Amino acid sequence: MTNRAMNFYAGPATLPLAALERARDELVDFDGTGMSIMEHSHRGPSYDAVHSEALSLVRELLEVPDTHRVLFLQGGARHQFAMVPLNLLRDGQSADYVDTGSWSAKALGEAKLVGEARLAASTKVDGVYTRIPTQSDLDLDPKAAYCHITSNNTLFGTQWHDYPDTGDVPLVADMTSDLLCRPIDVSKFGVIFAGAQKNLGPAGVTVVIIREDLVEGGRTDIPQVLRYKSFADKDSLWNTPPTFAIYMLRNTLAVAKERGGARAMRAAANERSSMLYDVMDAHPDFFRCPVEEESRSIMNVVWRLPTEELEKKFLAEAKERNMVGLKGHRSVGGLRASIYNNCEKAWVEALAGFLDEFRVANG
Amino acid sequence: MTNRAMNFYAGPATLPLAALERARDELVDFDGTGMSIMEHSHRGPSYDAVHSEALSLVRELLEVPDTHRVLFLQGGARHQFAMVPLNLLRDGQSADYVDTGSWSAKALGEAKLVGEARLAASTKVDGVYTRIPTQSDLDLDPKAAYCHITSNNTLFGTQWHDYPDTGDVPLVADMTSDLLCRPIDVSKFGVIFAGAQKNLGPAGVTVVIIREDLVEGGRTDIPQVLRYKSFADKDSLWNTPPTFAIYMLRNTLAVAKERGGARAMRAAANERSSMLYDVMDAHPDFFRCPVEEESRSIMNVVWRLPTEELEKKFLAEAKERNMVGLKGHRSVGGLRASIYNNCEKAWVEALAGFLDEFRVANG
Repeated sequence: MTNRAMNFYAGPATLPLAALERARDELVDFDGTGMSIMEHSHRGPSYDAVHSEALSLVRELLEVPDTHRVLFLQGGARHQFAMVPLNLLRDGQSADYVDTGSWSAKALGEAKLVGEARLAASTKVDGVYTRIPTQSDLDLDPKAAYCHITSNNTLFGTQWHDYPDTGDVPLVADMTSDLLCRPIDVSKFGVIFAGAQKNLGPAGVTVVIIREDLVEGGRTDIPQVLRYKSFADKDSLWNTPPTFAIYMLRNTLAVAKERGGARAMRAAANERSSMLYDVMDAHPDFFRCPVEEESRSIMNVVWRLPTEELEKKFLAEAKERNMVGLKGHRSVGGLRASIYNNCEKAWVEALAGFLDEFRVANG
Repeated sequence: MTNRAMNFYAGPATLPLAALERARDELVDFDGTGMSIMEHSHRGPSYDAVHSEALSLVRELLEVPDTHRVLFLQGGARHQFAMVPLNLLRDGQSADYVDTGSWSAKALGEAKLVGEARLAASTKVDGVYTRIPTQSDLDLDPKAAYCHITSNNTLFGTQWHDYPDTGDVPLVADMTSDLLCRPIDVSKFGVIFAGAQKNLGPAGVTVVIIREDLVEGGRTDIPQVLRYKSFADKDSLWNTPPTFAIYMLRNTLAVAKERGGARAMRAAANERSSMLYDVMDAHPDFFRCPVEEESRSIMNVVWRLPTEELEKKFLAEAKERNMVGLKGHRSVGGLRASIYNNCEKAWVEALAGFLDEFRVANG
């Protein structure tokens, strides 16, 4: 056992130790081939088995129906902010965007460079977001090409717990920071995308789950590399994929499966986040959680202490305890614990204990 | 020492054993931090040092002048086939493409989806390419937005040895399969791009070297994620980069530096390729090298044997000798040895010896 840091970074995030050890043990010689998996051709049998297993694990763990394709792309969510409108938004159409944080605002900005896009709702008040809109808050265009949401907001610590009903309009969800934290009904979505670097694996690969008819009906007047269909038609081997990132995603998802899959992930995430929210709720005079209770994220817990000096002191003392990544995003300040799927329960227990100790010592 | 395969795959390609062992040794615990480099935030000091060193190594090894920026992007050459015209080609302009193989043909096809693009030359005859054009073969448009070439053609085994003079028209080169195989005068290029997975590192990161004025003058009516400027302005940390791929590129380039840099790489590549061409040239009745001598690649050596049966037999016997990846590309057939920077001299010696043995036994 190494002296593992208690890693609360918002992403790239911690990975299962077993997934890393597996990678280490076969890094130089994969499966007796005398080559690293990084050195294998993406058209050869060794990599092909890894690639297929990774695709199958996504499908199995998220119960992806036959109506939807699973793709491995590159470029992260930001690349999807462009690919979605480029593929799905045609002249004369408009797309709806629900603004719940800086990532959805960025997605809307990118869509406006491609075509017509409008705000279907925003929960921004005085520059901050403390809640997810309700269905009645949404001003949906029934003719929209699609409706885009960000399922979990890493900066502001909010998360959709009941997805909106968009009728026949395809629902597009950026699930970068919470895909696989719980079971979802994939059939209700047109497109789900997620950079892997929170729950699924390392940075460098993006998982896209897209309904077959949206693949087939995608625009063909855009570059091939920007079309979902290019990748869908070739099982994400249209060009050289990021082979090692997909290999690590395979290792990470294999651990998720062993741990019980999406249902077990939800139970564990609820448990982890409750440990933190409970200790804070018990002393609202000392801990200020800005997010409305029903919108709280089970992935990113954000809070403030009475003063910025205390926040600095907290970070310094946390570091001494081998807890890293607890600083809030530079644009919002405060403190944040990112407790994604691969964050160990023991780390969160330790953090909850430290929160209480710190309050007693400084409250 | 592991039993290393003699890896002649066209890419992803072999990496230096020292780069892999370094990765293995610190895979679980990077620099005593208790975290893998994959688990570090891209905004934290550990990754930042790796990122900066990787950028510096590219700059140092290729003697990149101050007029040019070095960027780390994703998506491989295919992504650049779209990004180049999207950024550099404006309404009313046209771009020149020199067709020397399937990759340049694909680049041209992608550019035509973005704007006006024309063939400045093609060496295609009866579906195959056996040479690089001379300067006088080129029908250059002096008003072109840029002129695109593929510096080395992996499928057909041809390579530019003297780059064309395009006057004031920016020269854009896809150097995916030969960047850093030799010194180049970067100042003569507007854009150089290369997927890392041949000479530079693993799949999943693309190196782009681009002249400052082309960054600054790039189109701003395209999505932000497709603009060079987004990445240039933020030292390639505009969004989450493929951190582990960049880390491996750093490890690989550190070995290249230790081995003597671009000049040493050229000497070694000349030596490796000569070993193979010499044994074939000595027996042209048995080995047929379709490429004209002055266009031969020092990275990908392609050849045919008298019959397809003999080619199959050769591949089977090579495999028994632990030599892998010698099959020609599926679209052209025949045999191919990809002998990139990180291919060991001993492997090429063994292959040259085997070529001769095989000839004696089957000639």
